[in-house]
Amino acid sequence: MIMSSELPPEEPPAAGRPDRRADARRNQERVFTAAVEVFAERGLEATVPEIAARAGVGKATVYRSYPAKADLAEAVARHRLAWLAERMAAAARQPDAFTALRDLLCDVSEQLSKDRLLVEVLPRARRWEEENDISGLTEKLIAAAQRQGTLRPDATAQDIRVLVGGYSRVLIALDVRDPAQWRRYATLSLNALRP
Amino acid sequence: MIMSSELPPEEPPAAGRPDRRADARRNQERVFTAAVEVFAERGLEATVPEIAARAGVGKATVYRSYPAKADLAEAVARHRLAWLAERMAAAARQPDAFTALRDLLCDVSEQLSKDRLLVEVLPRARRWEEENDISGLTEKLIAAAQRQGTLRPDATAQDIRVLVGGYSRVLIALDVRDPAQWRRYATLSLNALRP
Repeated sequence: MIMSSELPPEEPPAAGRPDRRADARRNQERVFTAAVEVFAERGLEATVPEIAARAGVGKATVYRSYPAKADLAEAVARHRLAWLAERMAAAARQPDAFTALRDLLCDVSEQLSKDRLLVEVLPRARRWEEENDISGLTEKLIAAAQRQGTLRPDATAQDIRVLVGGYSRVLIALDVRDPAQWRRYATLSLNALRP
Repeated sequence: MIMSSELPPEEPPAAGRPDRRADARRNQERVFTAAVEVFAERGLEATVPEIAARAGVGKATVYRSYPAKADLAEAVARHRLAWLAERMAAAARQPDAFTALRDLLCDVSEQLSKDRLLVEVLPRARRWEEENDISGLTEKLIAAAQRQGTLRPDATAQDIRVLVGGYSRVLIALDVRDPAQWRRYATLSLNALRP
């Protein structure tokens, strides 16, 4: 709001003088990129001063776009969850459902190994789950793998939630950040559901 | 202490008058049995008044044998861990190591489904683990199953800790107390480690 009133869109940059609107946009992008990094490293404990420092801007620049830390955290969380929703939709389009499910869980686990914000936000993202029909997508993948004879007939979405939620909690508690370990437990957990 | 000075062992019960020593012993047994039940239901939140009420005795009777709740909790925890150590030793003596491991995990999981105290105490029972060589026993079972070709060559005791610790945490968080569910995830987790 402040930016757009200071810099009305019809005003062209004056020659020889920096384009303040382009500067502001670049700063905003830097803040967002830094926020993605810092939230990934430290989860919701990350602070605006840390993010500003990483972006190489002042705190005021951050607050100009995001009045509170919660606004920035929400924007970053939405960005990460959008990735996850796309990744799940891509899995649903693959022909071999077991492989699709395994690769999906491996990729998600790898992201969880690197992203504390995702770890903290995902268990509470009920509305996002509903809006993106995460249960529906998971159940479709499970049903397809069962038709293809590659998953136990009694496997459920709840099984995946318990097994994946389970090793994730332990790996987080042990502060394991090695993506290979996370991918290994994703693979093992899907093996658990082989017929 | 109080009991033994009140009731010296050489004194026989007087005819027509209740044997106070036998009464005290019966009360102690009742308190212990009640404590096992109440700690199983409520974990370390259980209180001495609750335990006394379940045993049908006064609080003073509990405190006579156990000066503080922590003493009673420790006695009960030791009793439950002794069961677990015996159960593990029995598994190590079975000829089919995979079946032994699976049945062991199923039985332990069933106990965890019923016993909040065990759930709360087990992750912190480092000294008990060392004294009973729990790691050694687990590794022996794993090595035997690998020799018998029934477990992945790269399976480790850590895998069992991550997978079993994992579903246990989720089932506890969801307050699942159905033993069949717990046994199911024990079986699935061992299936995960099949070659």
